[in-house]
Amino acid sequence: MDFYDGTSVNTLQVVYTKELANFDSITKIHPGSAIEVKGTLVESNGKQEYELKPESINLIGDCPTDYPIQPKRHTVEFLRSQAYLRPRTKLFQAVFKIRSIAAAGIHEYFQNNNYTYVHTPIMTNSDCEGSNQMFKVTTFDLADVPKTEDGSVDYTQDLFGKEAYITGSGQLHGETYAMAFKKIYTFGPTFRTEDSNTKTHANEFWMIEPEMAFTHLEGLMDAEEDMLKYVIKYTLEKGAAEIEFLNQFVSKGLKEKLEKVANSNFVRITHHEAIDLLLGSGEKWEFTPDYESDIAKEHEKWITEHFGAPVFIYNWPKDIKAWYMKLNDDGKTVAAVDLEVPGSGELMGGSEREVDMDKLEELIKIHGVDRSQVEWYVNLRKFGGCYHSGYGMGFERLIMYLTGVENIRDVIPFPRTPGNLNY
Amino acid sequence: MDFYDGTSVNTLQVVYTKELANFDSITKIHPGSAIEVKGTLVESNGKQEYELKPESINLIGDCPTDYPIQPKRHTVEFLRSQAYLRPRTKLFQAVFKIRSIAAAGIHEYFQNNNYTYVHTPIMTNSDCEGSNQMFKVTTFDLADVPKTEDGSVDYTQDLFGKEAYITGSGQLHGETYAMAFKKIYTFGPTFRTEDSNTKTHANEFWMIEPEMAFTHLEGLMDAEEDMLKYVIKYTLEKGAAEIEFLNQFVSKGLKEKLEKVANSNFVRITHHEAIDLLLGSGEKWEFTPDYESDIAKEHEKWITEHFGAPVFIYNWPKDIKAWYMKLNDDGKTVAAVDLEVPGSGELMGGSEREVDMDKLEELIKIHGVDRSQVEWYVNLRKFGGCYHSGYGMGFERLIMYLTGVENIRDVIPFPRTPGNLNY
Repeated sequence: MDFYDGTSVNTLQVVYTKELANFDSITKIHPGSAIEVKGTLVESNGKQEYELKPESINLIGDCPTDYPIQPKRHTVEFLRSQAYLRPRTKLFQAVFKIRSIAAAGIHEYFQNNNYTYVHTPIMTNSDCEGSNQMFKVTTFDLADVPKTEDGSVDYTQDLFGKEAYITGSGQLHGETYAMAFKKIYTFGPTFRTEDSNTKTHANEFWMIEPEMAFTHLEGLMDAEEDMLKYVIKYTLEKGAAEIEFLNQFVSKGLKEKLEKVANSNFVRITHHEAIDLLLGSGEKWEFTPDYESDIAKEHEKWITEHFGAPVFIYNWPKDIKAWYMKLNDDGKTVAAVDLEVPGSGELMGGSEREVDMDKLEELIKIHGVDRSQVEWYVNLRKFGGCYHSGYGMGFERLIMYLTGVENIRDVIPFPRTPGNLNY
Repeated sequence: MDFYDGTSVNTLQVVYTKELANFDSITKIHPGSAIEVKGTLVESNGKQEYELKPESINLIGDCPTDYPIQPKRHTVEFLRSQAYLRPRTKLFQAVFKIRSIAAAGIHEYFQNNNYTYVHTPIMTNSDCEGSNQMFKVTTFDLADVPKTEDGSVDYTQDLFGKEAYITGSGQLHGETYAMAFKKIYTFGPTFRTEDSNTKTHANEFWMIEPEMAFTHLEGLMDAEEDMLKYVIKYTLEKGAAEIEFLNQFVSKGLKEKLEKVANSNFVRITHHEAIDLLLGSGEKWEFTPDYESDIAKEHEKWITEHFGAPVFIYNWPKDIKAWYMKLNDDGKTVAAVDLEVPGSGELMGGSEREVDMDKLEELIKIHGVDRSQVEWYVNLRKFGGCYHSGYGMGFERLIMYLTGVENIRDVIPFPRTPGNLNY
């Protein structure tokens, strides 16, 4: 019978014979049951290198025939409806093992390279990234929210005495620690209220947000490239069996793709150069490439295929990027950089941060950021500030890239999407 | 001048002379400024082994004299009010470096021992740990919550279409993954609405919750002891300079305490034996030790001092413990275990989980748990269930223990406590 213990996507054949006292009852064990086997590993004549010759097989937990996961092909859609059982299937054994391995690789990389791990707060009252995208948090009974005389919410009666959200990013808080520890990283959950049902959006996801003092845009790209290559190599090594499985059954060519990227030199071009290339490509575009605009998915795809390698696109038009990014000397672009990877599009986004107090104050005004809420952030520039840069990587994006799985719902143990808060 | 770069709590003396062209301006650099120094490490005649002989010193970011952190002794209370700047002080350099190191040690331990890291969900609709202790999460405008005709909240209009909370524990979700991967651990933020201002309570804190299939109570204690010793040794090694500093300035004897624990054998006694000891101790207790009740702080203290080692207290009266804990054969106690450590009290709590369907159904009724919300949890016992155990460790508790810092507000970068949601 097929036996697994959760330590590898590979199962072990337990070849039992009538010599076992409880042979008859063993033959009646249902798929999905928990068993305890004692025996000896012996060389196998079958497809696997080893098989287990059991001395005893004991049933620990039976599994009735209405068990939803039967030894046949189930669709991922069906398995999503069984989120608490699906990690017992080979596909999700592989995916969630890779998720664990990649997380370990990320920590190892940053720790080895002298980054300090910081737990930036989850609950926050700073809505500078747009409170319309943030979940509200409260201890109020929603059926009976206390109001002041003028009919507005009486937050003084809430636990924190003010409006509270769960965070969409730890970056601003991370910067305060980069000013103390030089290099820091976060690795924690983030939340967006986006009411969008696509393959790549979830309302809860994990982010890694490193921030480095004394680092300009070039150093930022170096840091991103170094990290990504390390994590890919780490995953290929520690998750070899899982990558092999995914390569065979989920995404042909996955292993080769990852090995190639881990050993490539990432391309670095400006946004302007990217638009030049797109306009000169002779392709018919659904969205016309434009020097003042973001690039579309079709553009990302073409560029990474054109170079056959990950591509950093930097110096973006300032109006389409965030308020805290460093304005370049041209007055038109900011020192922002996106990393586009073949087959997946944008994997990381980062920038050098604006440290010029006057420019920052102006950007805060232009973008309509509430100055009182970012007083402490502005002060980082006042008190011993220095040039610094940081980036963000969506952890689920990385896992999709590493596993070849195309729907974000299939790389999160219990995904949260609009209308879906089961378990 | 005193110089640090965030990689160690130890600062470096930069001994500059008039030979430097900008000598005059260097003498005027304010405390807290960001500088860039190029030079050579040379042996020092001072207290430190090395000092830096600079070739150049450049001011990157000036720091005006209204900088709140001046080179003098500040109280921790004052520094709490400067949470975004306090990591630049020696105390918080040490504390938050240890926090990063301990987190890395935890990941390394579990990964090396074949545990799979699982990101259990933060947002959940499962309130089986008591929704009165959980923060509510919503996309509603709190000033104008949609109501149904009967005046109750119309959750169908919220993003998830139902009530949502942020989690107080990942354990139940973690168990589903332990049934797939055998050994798993979580490491993520958790939330409680507790309106309590003590040194040990925060509304947001990080927890580690390992869960192990095929593990009874003895194995659970083995696993806890092994993990804690590993993390202490790891921290002593990787955070040697920080522990030295904390030992000298925060908690005399800290280093010896940690070394002793890392090399001790943890004591294991039942709750009944603990009460016997307390009653027979001849001490005058504020709270009389009782076979049916929890033990008080004064009891924890006496027990750990009595043994001079960490003490596992197991088999607790069932009525004071959680509903999912395994009922022992005596019908009176559950297979729960708390770990008490000298100088800090309870550091971990765990139990074997109830896997007998009938007993579990009864416990759910007795404790008034909403059966419909834990259907999937109960089903873990139905579909190939097995005996299993798990524990929880509050990460901040551990950091307080490792650093000797006594207030939880001083081991969290931006602490959240009642009335305090700054930054």
